[in-house]
Amino acid sequence: MRNIKLTLSYDGTDFFGWQLQPNRRTVQGVVEDALKVILTGDVRIYGSGRTDAGVHSLGQIANFKTESRIELSGLKRGLNSLLPKDVRVLDLDEVPEEFDSRRWATSRIYRYIIIRCEVALPFARNYAWHIIDELDVEAMKRAGSKFVGTHDFSSFAGSEEAKGGGGKGEEGRNSVSKIREILNLSIRNGAGSQGLVPGEFIEITIEANAFLRHMVRNIVGTVVDIGRGKRDESEIIEILEAKDRSMAGATAPPSGLYLVEVKYS
Amino acid sequence: MRNIKLTLSYDGTDFFGWQLQPNRRTVQGVVEDALKVILTGDVRIYGSGRTDAGVHSLGQIANFKTESRIELSGLKRGLNSLLPKDVRVLDLDEVPEEFDSRRWATSRIYRYIIIRCEVALPFARNYAWHIIDELDVEAMKRAGSKFVGTHDFSSFAGSEEAKGGGGKGEEGRNSVSKIREILNLSIRNGAGSQGLVPGEFIEITIEANAFLRHMVRNIVGTVVDIGRGKRDESEIIEILEAKDRSMAGATAPPSGLYLVEVKYS
Repeated sequence: MRNIKLTLSYDGTDFFGWQLQPNRRTVQGVVEDALKVILTGDVRIYGSGRTDAGVHSLGQIANFKTESRIELSGLKRGLNSLLPKDVRVLDLDEVPEEFDSRRWATSRIYRYIIIRCEVALPFARNYAWHIIDELDVEAMKRAGSKFVGTHDFSSFAGSEEAKGGGGKGEEGRNSVSKIREILNLSIRNGAGSQGLVPGEFIEITIEANAFLRHMVRNIVGTVVDIGRGKRDESEIIEILEAKDRSMAGATAPPSGLYLVEVKYS
Repeated sequence: MRNIKLTLSYDGTDFFGWQLQPNRRTVQGVVEDALKVILTGDVRIYGSGRTDAGVHSLGQIANFKTESRIELSGLKRGLNSLLPKDVRVLDLDEVPEEFDSRRWATSRIYRYIIIRCEVALPFARNYAWHIIDELDVEAMKRAGSKFVGTHDFSSFAGSEEAKGGGGKGEEGRNSVSKIREILNLSIRNGAGSQGLVPGEFIEITIEANAFLRHMVRNIVGTVVDIGRGKRDESEIIEILEAKDRSMAGATAPPSGLYLVEVKYS
């Protein structure tokens, strides 16, 4: 059996997220459908983790097994001509038969994009979180650094997951433990145009061994509260220690979130 | 009567262009609808020119007359909360009663964005023309410079307009004459990310006193033919002199085109 690794970019706006669901347009669904046409048979793809509705990807990884001897450059061209334009296959690689896109991943990098200005150009509406209020970005940077390290992230888990037991992590694992390790968290800001949309941008990039569902968006919501002066940066440690979802900020909207990269050792 | 000037940005993807049409979603239509709600009465807005379906704007200008004494900052906030997110009011200004956004305009600036790469990220799909082939950008720059000046642009006019007589120019004027003056045409290219989409970008920016319908897209289509080596840069003068639409290249897709600015003296 050949094992093929897919690197995928998608615009999450018009998808009900990554994971296959009946009667819903999902990324996994449209990619499997295109593969079935070319490989003429059932194909199941396994993603490195789920992304929620509206969340984008610059480099989601998935893999699938096939007996087909099809040449990968032809398969890539074929998939990109069959797939809707909001999903693109960036790369296809043959990997060892044991490779598992989820279990072999050593870390994931997500980025969250905020545009701060009075009126955001319409091109940003599905691709960033537009915030009108002034933000104290230096306080956000100091607060962000407090997340780095190994912590119990129960206070930043999706609510059904935070209730404990049986919730599935963003990386697809049945995870009773809410302990995760954030390897890097950087906040970069600047004026200047990000593409067509000029304005003040804030990019929050987080690398962790794995993420709980909604973890990035809950961290961003809390850090933005600090930027707005609604909370003090000293509260981060207390919120982590409380292991109580109600202590942290609201979940930031999905439109600003990008899965940037999945790393393998 | 007060005369109010609107500066508008819109994402043209989901509009049938600027101009009001029955049973079609147009930019003029949604802006007039929002104004009617706030000003509680009929309002007609007059644009500096039409843009076609799929064409975007970073700074379309329009004006409308009203007896209302409403404060402009409140009107701007009200409009932006009522309008769909793909149209934004960037500015509102009170102008002399005789101001006419079309007739008073001294020049218009359009920009066309091309992304050249094997697989374009999905975020570019509605906002640029994705070209897979290699392009000779230096030849495109040399060809572009030949358009500058006052010419009869019949060879680059929209087909119904090129047939002559009675066609309405992109700036909305009944224009038998196809003579226009291109004040500037610059082609800029570079690797580097334009927003979320990394790749090789080519931006063609054209300023003219006025444009014929499809004129920018027909110039771009012809210049891209030269970049692909399908035509020689020396042909531009011949094509202009022929005054024959069939001599020039195909019309470039609308998704890459932006009305950037309308200038007034």
